[in-house]
Amino acid sequence: MDHEIIHISEHNYAYPIDKDILNVRLKVRKDYYEQINVLYKNLYNHDNEIFKKQMTLLLRDEIYEIYECHIQVKERHFKYYFELIKDNKKIAYTADGLIKEPKQDNFFYYPVINDDEIIALPEWAKGEIIYQILVDRFYDGCINNNPRQVKNVNQMPDRNTYYGGDFHGIIKKLDYIKSLGTKIIYLSPVFSSPTYHKYDIKDYYKIEDIYGGEEGLTTLINEAHKLDIKIILDCVYNHCSIENDLFQDVIKNGVKSNYKDWFIIDNFPINTKKCNYDTFGGLVPSMPRFNTSNKAVIEYLVGNAVYWTKKLNVDGFRLDVADEVSIRLWREFRARLKEIKPDILIIGEVWNHASKWLQGDQFDTVTNYKFRKWLLDFLTEKITSREFWNKINANKMLYKTPFHTYLINLVGSHDTIRLKTFLKNDKIHYLALALMLTLDGMPLIYYGDEIGLEGDVDPDNRRPFKWDEIDKEELKMIKELGQLRSAYQPLKKGDIIPIIFDDRVLAFIRRYRTEEIIVVINFTNQNKKLKLNVKRIIYGSAEILDNAISISKLSIVLFK
Amino acid sequence: MDHEIIHISEHNYAYPIDKDILNVRLKVRKDYYEQINVLYKNLYNHDNEIFKKQMTLLLRDEIYEIYECHIQVKERHFKYYFELIKDNKKIAYTADGLIKEPKQDNFFYYPVINDDEIIALPEWAKGEIIYQILVDRFYDGCINNNPRQVKNVNQMPDRNTYYGGDFHGIIKKLDYIKSLGTKIIYLSPVFSSPTYHKYDIKDYYKIEDIYGGEEGLTTLINEAHKLDIKIILDCVYNHCSIENDLFQDVIKNGVKSNYKDWFIIDNFPINTKKCNYDTFGGLVPSMPRFNTSNKAVIEYLVGNAVYWTKKLNVDGFRLDVADEVSIRLWREFRARLKEIKPDILIIGEVWNHASKWLQGDQFDTVTNYKFRKWLLDFLTEKITSREFWNKINANKMLYKTPFHTYLINLVGSHDTIRLKTFLKNDKIHYLALALMLTLDGMPLIYYGDEIGLEGDVDPDNRRPFKWDEIDKEELKMIKELGQLRSAYQPLKKGDIIPIIFDDRVLAFIRRYRTEEIIVVINFTNQNKKLKLNVKRIIYGSAEILDNAISISKLSIVLFK
Repeated sequence: MDHEIIHISEHNYAYPIDKDILNVRLKVRKDYYEQINVLYKNLYNHDNEIFKKQMTLLLRDEIYEIYECHIQVKERHFKYYFELIKDNKKIAYTADGLIKEPKQDNFFYYPVINDDEIIALPEWAKGEIIYQILVDRFYDGCINNNPRQVKNVNQMPDRNTYYGGDFHGIIKKLDYIKSLGTKIIYLSPVFSSPTYHKYDIKDYYKIEDIYGGEEGLTTLINEAHKLDIKIILDCVYNHCSIENDLFQDVIKNGVKSNYKDWFIIDNFPINTKKCNYDTFGGLVPSMPRFNTSNKAVIEYLVGNAVYWTKKLNVDGFRLDVADEVSIRLWREFRARLKEIKPDILIIGEVWNHASKWLQGDQFDTVTNYKFRKWLLDFLTEKITSREFWNKINANKMLYKTPFHTYLINLVGSHDTIRLKTFLKNDKIHYLALALMLTLDGMPLIYYGDEIGLEGDVDPDNRRPFKWDEIDKEELKMIKELGQLRSAYQPLKKGDIIPIIFDDRVLAFIRRYRTEEIIVVINFTNQNKKLKLNVKRIIYGSAEILDNAISISKLSIVLFK
Repeated sequence: MDHEIIHISEHNYAYPIDKDILNVRLKVRKDYYEQINVLYKNLYNHDNEIFKKQMTLLLRDEIYEIYECHIQVKERHFKYYFELIKDNKKIAYTADGLIKEPKQDNFFYYPVINDDEIIALPEWAKGEIIYQILVDRFYDGCINNNPRQVKNVNQMPDRNTYYGGDFHGIIKKLDYIKSLGTKIIYLSPVFSSPTYHKYDIKDYYKIEDIYGGEEGLTTLINEAHKLDIKIILDCVYNHCSIENDLFQDVIKNGVKSNYKDWFIIDNFPINTKKCNYDTFGGLVPSMPRFNTSNKAVIEYLVGNAVYWTKKLNVDGFRLDVADEVSIRLWREFRARLKEIKPDILIIGEVWNHASKWLQGDQFDTVTNYKFRKWLLDFLTEKITSREFWNKINANKMLYKTPFHTYLINLVGSHDTIRLKTFLKNDKIHYLALALMLTLDGMPLIYYGDEIGLEGDVDPDNRRPFKWDEIDKEELKMIKELGQLRSAYQPLKKGDIIPIIFDDRVLAFIRRYRTEEIIVVINFTNQNKKLKLNVKRIIYGSAEILDNAISISKLSIVLFK
């Protein structure tokens, strides 16, 4: 028997998903065991009745497999071990390691499920499409609230450019956004700030006038809700603007300021040139960093989210630099917000492994930049479709299963080069978007990517939207796939089962309950004949043969 | 290169131990790699300066090795990967798996150290000896507060027996307790309760009269403090007594009770015979279980600990059934108590793997029952000393390193058969205590074990202390070793380095800074000659030869 077996009775390996249901997970070497069972019982029941359940293969990557299983004990006290079968021999994996005949004191313990530990995520958001808007760059719906100098939409942006985009602009384009199959609009920060992007907030209690103020935002939220579109605001809690009154008070009053412990200051007085205080990334004097371990700061910032949630009826928050704000703040944030709006959606911006924040006590999901990384490697032929599949699975292995359908897949954002510009290939660009729209997770479309908007890294990736390009042929595909995803539960919420992952062809099933959709994407320059049993086409075109299909080069087809 | 490499950039694998110091840990297959380095830098520093540090072998068990290393980045933003060396070939282990030439986006990220995440444990408690007392069974110091019927100390206990032990009895025996090298006394519950053991509390705001009331406890704490002994109270928050007013209110008022959500009730009215409510272990109607996910319950119980900490100046709490009380409660408990008394000691009762509660946000330590399990297997010759060593290391691998010197090692408690009775061998019993007193961790002595008190499982394991047996010869060894531990930093706080673990002989070094103590224990029935370079004996007797020692059968010797 081998030793590559990983389980701890907590963290991502054992977690409650309901009052009396525990999800247990075992990670083992790939292609090694023939079957894995979990044997379990009530921790306090001293008889010998032990229940047994065969575990299901959940994920495979290059090296490992993950098996998973729900176990239910109505008394909510759990004791369990795993039975590994190979060559008709059984061995038990227990809290005390590998044992031939485990006794009850060798079992793993999950002493009890308390309600506060049950993973609960907003059902309405599962698998839905998010549309990300930089407010200033989307559409100028009302020139009355424009800042003094506004660039023409045909001019290129720099780091200090305004285009006049506002809430009324978004309201006017809600039907367009809806036509993409979008369920959620995520707005760049809307609070009063000296910059166009507003990732440095001057006043957390004021909605930006040049965007249309509180009235404009209220109207946008109401109009969006009429179309069943949810609105997510961007929460910037890691740092604020140097112009924020809180920091200005520390500049003015130094050690005597009531807010001196609200920031992380090396020594007094504050010297903005020497930057003797911590900032965003340690490098940006104009963005002093909050001390988010400070209780008063936690109370102030969480109180702010509570205030706007109640006042505006917002549907969620995207948390900027979420991985640098204290965990204590996020726990309080979740507890307080879910209390007033249980199905509010909380999205953390995290660029690397994010399991620390996806334990159920902080975020509902995170920006899945690792998906982007592997997708780009695949699109540029650095890795095969099989490697791509293994890598995105290895990434999913880091997270508790309920989060898998929430991970926010993206091909780019305001912080990356645009996909179109990176690829220099329109066909592949759209096929990549199509892939994202059919995979599991929550696809995020950064405004303009759907019309192939170009843009190198910041500030070029923030060009104004080109409203004269929305009749583009390729946009139709995005709209149709978006609407299909929005309409079909399997595409939105379904499990994903691999069929073919080789030679730059990807075929997989999305399955929700008894309903199935088969997705086939051909990234090669040749038409492909594939062994596949399908009934009918629901998107795209292909030839259905006997137990096979023929699909054109660089195309996507969805079958029932 | 092999695949048995385990690291995630969080949990027990990456955690801050100071403002700018991250502890990173890598788990790999035993005896495989020749060297492991960690390469790290400031996450936001985009130059190519990367620091490199060789990692140290921390622990080995049967299968794995753990390497660990402190990395320091004054800006507190971390990015790192591991370099594994075998047969002069190097490979990198990164967030994206094994890579020959990692780029910066492949690194693991630890985005920032916030103060709230730094592991901070009470320095004063590290490695100290705890003495556990069942108040009723220790010593009757004042007959005025005795309950009506009190048994003679020579009679055997049943499940409803009082012996009259009280706070004044403990005060009278403080010198004795101190003579064992004890730093901490952990008292069984002292709050008003209908049972002798008081693990079912009737009134959380009243100290039990039959123990001497609040005045008696205050005197005990003050007298103990004069001797530099700390007092730890037992917190029973999982359940209360059926007689508790809170539950009585629910019995009386049913769904109209203000406390109906304070418990976990299947249906109303409460039926104590049918037991239609959750209880301790799901089986004890007289002990209704609190709903510790309820905010009001958290406020009430945490408020109680805050109240007594302030009023009595207690030094810590031992948390009963700690693994079934909500995590939310314990986080609040720690935050509030550490705020008023930063060095208060928090001990959770956990019988199995406890890593979930030892993340730095809940307990300082737990009852290390897995140590007892492996020790008993070793003492009864089911496993060798090598296997014992591997097993206790495998257990330590579950925990962040700062917790290792705090794990509460025990040979028994009020919930187990007594060691003496289990072993039926006085010599081995005392040698086991001696081993515990020289290993790392915090040794816990259950009152009476030091005089070889007998006792089968509950209620027999709770016999009254035999004060006529404290002149026993073997007790001298316990006292001397206890005092040595108390006096010598290496025994208390030192690292542990194995020398010999075979043939039922254990030899190891305890090292603290530049100071070393060598411990040799011979569990065999033969005198043993061992290759060992020592200077002088500081406890016990042995013959010091050229680069060797000769040690008697069934004995312990400590050398410099």
